[in-house]
Amino acid sequence: MKKLNIAIVGLGNIGSYLFKYLIKNKMILAKKNNCIPNVIYLSAKNKNRKRKIKFNKKMFLNNYLDATKKEDIDLIVELIGGAEGPAKKLVFKALKNKKHVVTANKALIAKYGDQLSKIAEKNRVNLEFEASVCGGVPIIRSLKEGLIANKINKVFGIFNGTSNYILSSMEKENKSFNEVLHKAKKLGYAESNPKSDLNGEDVAAKLKILTSLCFNSFLNKNIHVEGIKEIDKDDINYAKKLGYKIKLLGYTELIGKHIYQRVHPTLIKNSSHVASIDGVLNAVIIDGIPVGKSIIQGEGAGPAATTSALISDISSILRGNIKFPFSISNKERKNLNFKQISGRSFSAYLRFEVVDKPGVLSNIAQIFSKNNVSIKRLVQDPNKNKGSSSIIIITHPSKDSSLNRIINIINNRSYVKKKSKLIRIDDN
Amino acid sequence: MKKLNIAIVGLGNIGSYLFKYLIKNKMILAKKNNCIPNVIYLSAKNKNRKRKIKFNKKMFLNNYLDATKKEDIDLIVELIGGAEGPAKKLVFKALKNKKHVVTANKALIAKYGDQLSKIAEKNRVNLEFEASVCGGVPIIRSLKEGLIANKINKVFGIFNGTSNYILSSMEKENKSFNEVLHKAKKLGYAESNPKSDLNGEDVAAKLKILTSLCFNSFLNKNIHVEGIKEIDKDDINYAKKLGYKIKLLGYTELIGKHIYQRVHPTLIKNSSHVASIDGVLNAVIIDGIPVGKSIIQGEGAGPAATTSALISDISSILRGNIKFPFSISNKERKNLNFKQISGRSFSAYLRFEVVDKPGVLSNIAQIFSKNNVSIKRLVQDPNKNKGSSSIIIITHPSKDSSLNRIINIINNRSYVKKKSKLIRIDDN
Repeated sequence: MKKLNIAIVGLGNIGSYLFKYLIKNKMILAKKNNCIPNVIYLSAKNKNRKRKIKFNKKMFLNNYLDATKKEDIDLIVELIGGAEGPAKKLVFKALKNKKHVVTANKALIAKYGDQLSKIAEKNRVNLEFEASVCGGVPIIRSLKEGLIANKINKVFGIFNGTSNYILSSMEKENKSFNEVLHKAKKLGYAESNPKSDLNGEDVAAKLKILTSLCFNSFLNKNIHVEGIKEIDKDDINYAKKLGYKIKLLGYTELIGKHIYQRVHPTLIKNSSHVASIDGVLNAVIIDGIPVGKSIIQGEGAGPAATTSALISDISSILRGNIKFPFSISNKERKNLNFKQISGRSFSAYLRFEVVDKPGVLSNIAQIFSKNNVSIKRLVQDPNKNKGSSSIIIITHPSKDSSLNRIINIINNRSYVKKKSKLIRIDDN
Repeated sequence: MKKLNIAIVGLGNIGSYLFKYLIKNKMILAKKNNCIPNVIYLSAKNKNRKRKIKFNKKMFLNNYLDATKKEDIDLIVELIGGAEGPAKKLVFKALKNKKHVVTANKALIAKYGDQLSKIAEKNRVNLEFEASVCGGVPIIRSLKEGLIANKINKVFGIFNGTSNYILSSMEKENKSFNEVLHKAKKLGYAESNPKSDLNGEDVAAKLKILTSLCFNSFLNKNIHVEGIKEIDKDDINYAKKLGYKIKLLGYTELIGKHIYQRVHPTLIKNSSHVASIDGVLNAVIIDGIPVGKSIIQGEGAGPAATTSALISDISSILRGNIKFPFSISNKERKNLNFKQISGRSFSAYLRFEVVDKPGVLSNIAQIFSKNNVSIKRLVQDPNKNKGSSSIIIITHPSKDSSLNRIINIINNRSYVKKKSKLIRIDDN
């Protein structure tokens, strides 16, 4: 039987799990794919760091870039992480030297995927990145293969387990953002530096990759990104009273000839499928023709789920055929017309914390009316102890730019006690 | 660019939709798969029947079996249906004559899949059947590729849209089985002869196929099958009061070294994911290591969703590599130890319609106790007009054989007015 020689670069939790998995399941994978996955080299920053895996020291490459030069390596699995630095160097050099690459690195693919894909195609090697988007959810392979027939209009979903855990725990346990974040770190659901999970950048990278796959387009930086740090307990509770949950969602939609990419906290009806997905789960919803609406969900992170994705990529390469990294040749990929969301319309939840005195409500209502935003529901919730009042407004669909203008105008009024909130609503 | 010559046999709704799709999307599929899908022949029972498609009459094969003989055909798409007769003849002959086959025929694959797979493997051609299980839900390709890393313990879900539509409509509209079935036929959600959708056989065929793929086993006939015809409005309402929905579910589980296949109406907690899937949707839940729980759901039937699946199979063949029909070589597939469910334990819902007189309840309780089935909840609902009473019992986990014995014993008592019910509960 044929063999494929593999080097794993990066031996953190994921790299170690993958190595153990490949050793243990070598023969079953060989049987399924008609080719033996043969790990012959490992590399990582520090050779002597204590790790949970045992390996022959001769397998260890002191210089990780040697993996790109050694004649006997067919495939490099990059598990270093980060869009720049060593990961970037490794993957560029590997593809240039005609090595297949499997990576879990969403930041790298979202930033340099187009360039990398061109090198891979030119050199007739594979560049696979299932593990970069939603861990164990086999969304990339489903888009490239299972759902290949479809003209996709919309892809959206929950792409970040950490933020979803935080929002759903805030709701279920009625706790503050910081309390829940603290617990999430303890449980290993949030990293010690969870910045990119909370500010939406992690979701944005995944969404950019999905967008290119769904719409046969090049990667595009035109994306609206908001995180969840400003969501507080009160928002969660008001949303609940109004029949919604707050989720951090990523969306790409094709409307007419324009594509819109956006990541932001969203009010979504309690009865919707997405609202039911709590905790660290991820879910991707694809709306396509002819298939209709498909949902794929599962564990989005962690060494086990990520290994499931990495093995699916490695298996595809074991089976031997060369695939286009983005499903279609680079010369067929398009530069679509990506637009900013300011021109689009959304229903929205707006919340104002104001001094409780006569005239405030009518002033706010006037500002809405002057900006052509019509109010669907209004809740005034006075807090007598503080002499203040919360005003929650649900609007009819209105231009995003108008909604933002209202927030800016009202934030400058003297009766405002706290920065006002704007959270878009998913009406579907 | 290479070409793959295709014959479509069977031109009902699905065959016609597929033909139109392939004509319209020929070039995009060619670009994605590096090979042109070229439909050169069509065949169906009646050449002159009015159809919604236009084609050159020269393409039509008067004898459908000619498709297996013509030198210029590479791939036959079988859309005749049925485990026996012409579909069986066509697919056996096609594979023997080294033609690739794509089929949506679950009955055929569930019955003859092992034999067919051996011929395909021997002749180095593909036999693909994504469309045979859950239409547009790309579950087979996900098992073979996206989730290839996993050791699967359990696969279950909603595999039949017609029965799911009926059960969820009975619940939502508080209507009887027959009323809802009538409506389902009108809306095209049930066929004029919906027998195999309602008696569980359709689910059983799909489950057998999934079982072989999940557990690398040969197809196995040892399966417990019950349909939904005996479920009435009262069951739905009692379930609802107790916090459950009734769904027709298929399950395969590996417990120790034994495999259990079963299809039956099931009480499932309102809060569970499966309970939220209403209408004609299908959903498959996979429990595997390392991935954890994955869910794939979408439209399970209809020409559009089925075409999505057929195209995924055709694309796989266009890309050119030969795959094992059941993911692994036939010589590696196993004869696993399939067991009947009588030895397993389930919690259950039992319902007795009895004469409302003293002593009945205590007699029933005695029978439970003698058979070592312990009662978790009991609801007695007297119907004074009829002098009768409904007794609903929820049990703790108990041997399936004991539960059935209780039903049989009580059915023979003179105080019983109607056949008693046993519906298993999903405790997870």
